[in-house]
Amino acid sequence: MTPSLNLASDNVTGMSDAVMAALIKANEGNEPAYGADQWTAKAEKLLAEVFEHEVFVSLVATGTGSNALALAALTPPWGAIFCHQESHVLDDECGAPEMFTDGAKLVGVKGEAGKLTVAALKPVVDHFVPGVIKSVQPAALSISQVTEAGTVYTLSEIKALCAFAHERHLKVHLDGARFGNALVSLGATPAEMTWKAGVDVVTFGATKNGALACEAIIFFDKALSESMPFRRKRGGHTVSKGRILGAQMIGYLEDDHWLHNARHANAMAQALTQGLNALGFARLPWPTQANEVFVVMPKAKAKALSDAGIRAAPWESISLPAQFEIGAEDAFLRFVLSFKTTPSEIDRVIATLKA
Amino acid sequence: MTPSLNLASDNVTGMSDAVMAALIKANEGNEPAYGADQWTAKAEKLLAEVFEHEVFVSLVATGTGSNALALAALTPPWGAIFCHQESHVLDDECGAPEMFTDGAKLVGVKGEAGKLTVAALKPVVDHFVPGVIKSVQPAALSISQVTEAGTVYTLSEIKALCAFAHERHLKVHLDGARFGNALVSLGATPAEMTWKAGVDVVTFGATKNGALACEAIIFFDKALSESMPFRRKRGGHTVSKGRILGAQMIGYLEDDHWLHNARHANAMAQALTQGLNALGFARLPWPTQANEVFVVMPKAKAKALSDAGIRAAPWESISLPAQFEIGAEDAFLRFVLSFKTTPSEIDRVIATLKA
Amino acid sequence: MTPSLNLASDNVTGMSDAVMAALIKANEGNEPAYGADQWTAKAEKLLAEVFEHEVFVSLVATGTGSNALALAALTPPWGAIFCHQESHVLDDECGAPEMFTDGAKLVGVKGEAGKLTVAALKPVVDHFVPGVIKSVQPAALSISQVTEAGTVYTLSEIKALCAFAHERHLKVHLDGARFGNALVSLGATPAEMTWKAGVDVVTFGATKNGALACEAIIFFDKALSESMPFRRKRGGHTVSKGRILGAQMIGYLEDDHWLHNARHANAMAQALTQGLNALGFARLPWPTQANEVFVVMPKAKAKALSDAGIRAAPWESISLPAQFEIGAEDAFLRFVLSFKTTPSEIDRVIATLKA
Amino acid sequence: MTPSLNLASDNVTGMSDAVMAALIKANEGNEPAYGADQWTAKAEKLLAEVFEHEVFVSLVATGTGSNALALAALTPPWGAIFCHQESHVLDDECGAPEMFTDGAKLVGVKGEAGKLTVAALKPVVDHFVPGVIKSVQPAALSISQVTEAGTVYTLSEIKALCAFAHERHLKVHLDGARFGNALVSLGATPAEMTWKAGVDVVTFGATKNGALACEAIIFFDKALSESMPFRRKRGGHTVSKGRILGAQMIGYLEDDHWLHNARHANAMAQALTQGLNALGFARLPWPTQANEVFVVMPKAKAKALSDAGIRAAPWESISLPAQFEIGAEDAFLRFVLSFKTTPSEIDRVIATLKA
Repeated sequence: MTPSLNLASDNVTGMSDAVMAALIKANEGNEPAYGADQWTAKAEKLLAEVFEHEVFVSLVATGTGSNALALAALTPPWGAIFCHQESHVLDDECGAPEMFTDGAKLVGVKGEAGKLTVAALKPVVDHFVPGVIKSVQPAALSISQVTEAGTVYTLSEIKALCAFAHERHLKVHLDGARFGNALVSLGATPAEMTWKAGVDVVTFGATKNGALACEAIIFFDKALSESMPFRRKRGGHTVSKGRILGAQMIGYLEDDHWLHNARHANAMAQALTQGLNALGFARLPWPTQANEVFVVMPKAKAKALSDAGIRAAPWESISLPAQFEIGAEDAFLRFVLSFKTTPSEIDRVIATLKA
Repeated sequence: MTPSLNLASDNVTGMSDAVMAALIKANEGNEPAYGADQWTAKAEKLLAEVFEHEVFVSLVATGTGSNALALAALTPPWGAIFCHQESHVLDDECGAPEMFTDGAKLVGVKGEAGKLTVAALKPVVDHFVPGVIKSVQPAALSISQVTEAGTVYTLSEIKALCAFAHERHLKVHLDGARFGNALVSLGATPAEMTWKAGVDVVTFGATKNGALACEAIIFFDKALSESMPFRRKRGGHTVSKGRILGAQMIGYLEDDHWLHNARHANAMAQALTQGLNALGFARLPWPTQANEVFVVMPKAKAKALSDAGIRAAPWESISLPAQFEIGAEDAFLRFVLSFKTTPSEIDRVIATLKA
Repeated sequence: MTPSLNLASDNVTGMSDAVMAALIKANEGNEPAYGADQWTAKAEKLLAEVFEHEVFVSLVATGTGSNALALAALTPPWGAIFCHQESHVLDDECGAPEMFTDGAKLVGVKGEAGKLTVAALKPVVDHFVPGVIKSVQPAALSISQVTEAGTVYTLSEIKALCAFAHERHLKVHLDGARFGNALVSLGATPAEMTWKAGVDVVTFGATKNGALACEAIIFFDKALSESMPFRRKRGGHTVSKGRILGAQMIGYLEDDHWLHNARHANAMAQALTQGLNALGFARLPWPTQANEVFVVMPKAKAKALSDAGIRAAPWESISLPAQFEIGAEDAFLRFVLSFKTTPSEIDRVIATLKA
Repeated sequence: MTPSLNLASDNVTGMSDAVMAALIKANEGNEPAYGADQWTAKAEKLLAEVFEHEVFVSLVATGTGSNALALAALTPPWGAIFCHQESHVLDDECGAPEMFTDGAKLVGVKGEAGKLTVAALKPVVDHFVPGVIKSVQPAALSISQVTEAGTVYTLSEIKALCAFAHERHLKVHLDGARFGNALVSLGATPAEMTWKAGVDVVTFGATKNGALACEAIIFFDKALSESMPFRRKRGGHTVSKGRILGAQMIGYLEDDHWLHNARHANAMAQALTQGLNALGFARLPWPTQANEVFVVMPKAKAKALSDAGIRAAPWESISLPAQFEIGAEDAFLRFVLSFKTTPSEIDRVIATLKA
C-alpha cells in the first residue's frame, strides 16, 4: 500500500541527519547548565559570523516562545505592536505576545499577499498618538519573512518599512520562522535582510528547516537585549541542559547546512508550482517565493489527494488579491515543502491530481 | 592530567543512551505536529500505566515551565500558594510562577530539612481568611519531593499535608524534579506517592535523571487540567515537533530505565555519604535520602577539592537544624550524583579529601 | 466679555445639585469602611428596583475601571472579546481591559454608525475556533449603548446581538457610560435594555450624567459576579470611605433624577441638531439619538466657533457612511450636551455659526 | 440610648468641613477633564510648596491604587520589593502590587514594632544576587510611615534605610497613608521626612486624615515618574472629572488643615494611651507615636466595650516585643483616633473600661 504523504506543515519532519549528529556529539560529557555550556557558546559565535555583527542571542525551543519574548523586549504593557492581520504573532499563538508583554496590544494591518506596506501602516500607526494617554503607545513593528502567504519581502520593502518604523520611534521585529527559505529566495545575506535593512531583533527559526526544537532570538543592540536573560528564565524558556539548543544550532549552521536545506525546500515548492500550473484547473493566489504553495482547486481534486493519502492544510485568508474568488466548489489548500521532500513526492501529488 | 569532575548539579549530564535511542527512533518519518504524534500518545499511555490512573498530561521542556504552568491551573491571580521558603518555585525560578499565575502570591513557610509540616503551615494558611477581600485567598500547597535539602517526605507526611490542604480547600502540587530519586528512596509506587496520598498535580521530572529536556505536568482530574492546552500554548511551551518530548519520555520510562537510573544515583549518594562520614571532619546537616549530599567541611578541604578539579555547589540554607552551626572557616557544599556518576568518581572525591 | 463654552465632553461639568446634596447628607457620622456602609447598601437596593432584578453591584469611581473589571469577569487571559473597532474599551482606555484580563485580546469589528451587526460579527467570531489551541478563545461581546457615534441600538438590535453571542457561548457586556441617554432615547426600561434583551453585565455610568465619579458594574447572575470583590480590591478600586460612591448613586437615582438629566441633555442635542441642519452648510454623518452631535462643517466655521470661545472636540472616525466624505477644507466636530447645557448656549452656537 | 462609637479605623469618618467646602467650590462651572482642570493644577502647586521641591504628582482615589501604581514604577516584573512582613502592601491589598507590577515579588522582612532595620534587611536583600537569573532582582524598598504598629520612624532611621537601599540600587517608596500623623509626631518637615532622607516616591494619603477619597503619588525625579500617566490610565485610576481629586487635596492642604487634623488625632491617641495606662490592666505592646493605640486587655473588658457600643478592631501581630505575651483570656485591640474624635469620646472609652 502507498504510504501517506504529509505536506500540511514543515513541522511534520524530524531533525536532519546533520542536526542529529551535532546533538549526539554534544551529548557526551558534563557541561555547565543553563546555557553556560561550550555548545551554546559555539552556536552564538557561529551566529555572529553568519550575521556579520555582534549578536546578543537567546536560544529557545519554540517559535511562539521566541516571538513572544522578542516582542516583550520592545514594548511596555501599554504599547502597540503593529503587524499583518494574518501574522502568526497576532493570530496563531493563543495570545502569547499579550502574555509576555503583560498585555500590550497587537494591531493587525491589512495587506495583500501577507505583506505590510508603509501606505497601509501609516494611518493605522498615526491613529495612536504619542503622549495621548487614552491611547496605547506605538512601540513596535513586527514583520514575517517568509510571510503568512508564502511570499518574501524584497530588501527594499524591508528597508522602507524599517525606515518608516524608526521615523515613528518603533522598534522592528522580524519573525524569521522560515528565515532560511526567505534568504535563499532573495539571494541576500543575513546581514542584508536584517540589521543592514533596519531590523532590531530577529527570531531566527531553525526548527522548520532541519532542527527539532530550536530558535534563536537575536538582538544586534546590547541595550535592547539586556532584559532577555530574566525574561527567558521567568518564561520558563531557559533550558537546564542548554546544550540541547546549542548543539542543534551548530548542526544547523555548520557547512551551510541550513542554506542547503532551504534551497532544497524552495526548489521543491517551485517544482510543485510548475506542476500545478500545468494542470489547468489549479489557481495560485500568490506567487511561490519560498517553500509554501497555496492553491485553489476543485473540491473533487482535493478529495482525490486526500483519498490517495496526501495531506495538505485546508486554508483561509483575508488577504487574497482583489479579483481572486474562491467558489463554493473550490478547496483552498496549503502545501509546505521541506528539506526532506523528494522530487518523487512532488510527482506523486501531480500525478494524483492529473488522474 | 586528571579530568575535571562536576558534581555541582544533575543538569550537567547529557541524556542517557536509552533516551537517546528513543529519540533517534522517533526522529524517523513524518508525524503530526504540536503533540498529536504517535510518540507523545505512547508517552501518555505509559504514564497512565506508571501512575495506575487516568492521567491528563502536558509535556514541556523545562522544570520552571512545568512548575509555573501547573501552579497556574490551581490558583486565581488573587490566590496564595504555600510552599517551603527555600522551595524552587519560590526562590529559583525568577518569578515564573508569578508570571504564569498573573501575579499570585507565593508564601514561604519555614521547615527544617526542607520539609513542611502541618503544624508550621496551619498558622500561616489561617492568616489568610477566605472571603476577606484585603487578603489574597488560600489556593494551593506546593511541596517538593525530593526537597531542597535532599530529603524525602514519607508517604504519611505527604498524606498529612494533603489532608490539611484539602481541609482548607487548597489544591496540592508536587514538584517532582527528582521524582524518581524520591520514589526509589521510599520504595513506593508512583500512585502511592501522588494521588493515593492526595496530590492533585505532579510535575514529573525526567531531565535530571536521564532525559535532556523533558518534564510532564500530570493531572489526575480532568476538570483541573482543562485550561492546560491553552496555558501551555500561550506560554510558548507547546513544542511544534512534539515528538522530541514524547520520545524522551518513552525512553525514560520503558524497561524501568528511570528507576534504574534513580537507584544508581541514590546509591552513589549513599556511597559518598559513607565516605564523608568516615573522614571525621565532614558534617552533614541532613540525612542523605536521595541523590544529593549536603556537607559542611573546613574551607581548606573544599579548596583541595577545587584544586583537584572536583566541583560541588557552594550552598546556603535557612532551614538548618537548630544546633547546627557553620563557622567562618567552614565551607557548605552540595554534591549531586547522577545516573552517570561512577563509584570511582566517589572514590576520587574521598581520596582527595583524605589527602 | 463672553465666557467660554465647553461642549467638547460631558466630563467637563461638575456634579448636579441633587448628587451634591446626597453626598453632603451621607458625609455625616461614622460608617463602616470598604462599602459596608448604609449608603452603598441603599444604592444597591435602588439599582435592584431600577433594574427590576436581583443585582450584584460593584461601585467604582471611573468608567475605564468599571469596563475593565467587568470584562475581566467574562474572559480567561486566552479569550477574545469582540467589540466595535471604535469602541471605548478598544481604543480609549490605554489597554486597561488587557491589563485587567491579564492579556485577553480585544477584536475590533467594523460597523456603520458605531453599531455592530450579527452579519458583521459572525465571520469574525467564527474565525476563532473553540478548542483550537493556537487561537484565542471566543469569550465575550462588548457593545456600547450609546455607541461611539452617538447612536442608540434598538431593543431588537440588542436582542439579536445577544442571541448570536449566546449561541456562540459568549457573555455580553454593555458599556453604559451614557446608559441614561440611551434609555430615554428608546423610551425603554432598564430591564428591557439589559437582562431582558440578554445582556449579562452592565457598566452603568452615572458620572457623565450628573455624578462626579461614580459607575456601577451590575451583574444579574451571582455566579458570574463572584470574583468581583477580589478583582475590585486588587485593582485598587475598592474605595475605603465607600459612602462617596453610594451617596452619589443615591442622589443620581432618587426621584428619577438621572432620567430627568438624560432627557434634558438629549433635548439639547436635538435642538442643536435642528439648528445645525437649518444652517445649510453643516452635515451630520449619523442621526442624533442621544446627547452627542457629530457634524462636518467648513473649517472657517469651526474657526469662528473657536474664536468665539466655543469648544467642540475635533473628531475622526472610520465608520462613516459609505458616501459620506470629509474634504480637506472640512472640520469634523463632536458636541456633547449635558444636564447643565442651556437652550441659550445652543442658541449661541447657532448664532455664532450663522454670523 | 448612647450612640455607638466606632474607633476601629480612620476610614469610618466622612470628609472634614474644609475639604467639603473646597469640593463644593470646585464643583462650579466647566473644567477640562482627566486632570487638566485648574483645581488639580493648584493641588500640584500646593504639594510642591509643601514638599519644597519640584514634584511629579498623580492623584488617585484609593490608597491601594496609589501604592500599587507607585511600586509599579520602581520594579520590573522580575524584581523584588522588600517591605515589612506586616506591611499593608504585602498583607492588605489582595495582591494589588503584584497585579500592577505584572508579578513582582514582595519580600516580607521581620521587624519589631512594625519597623524595618538595616540589620534585618541586609541578609534578606543580599540573598537575591544581582545578575543571577534564577533569582528575582532587588528593585525597591517600601517602608510605611506611620508603620503598621502605629510607630513612627525617626528621620535618622529613614536615612539609614534609604542609604542602605541606594547602596544596593533599590529605589525607596514611602507608604504615607498616615503621612500627616507621622509628620507632626516627628515635628519634621515633609521635605525632611522624604527626599532629604532619600525617599524616591511617596504615597501621600489624605483620605484617612480629612479627605473622602484622595491620595497623591509624589515623585521627586521626573525620569522615575514618566510612565505614571499611562500606568494610571491603564489601571482605571485617571478620574474623568479630575477636579474631585484636586479639590479635596486643596481643602486638605490649605491653611495647614491637614497638620491641624493630624495633631488633633495624635493628641486623642495620647489621651487614650494615658487613660489606658492608668487603668492598670491594659498593656500596650508598642509606644503610641501617631493616631493609633494598640492594647491588650482582659477579654471581659473588651466585651464591656463592645456591650457599650464602642468598637475597636480585633488585632493580631507577628512583630510583638520578645517578652510580650498575649494569653488565652486576653483581647488584642486597635483603636484609631481621627480628626473627628472628641475628648469626651476618649473619656467614654476609659469610663467604660473602669466600670
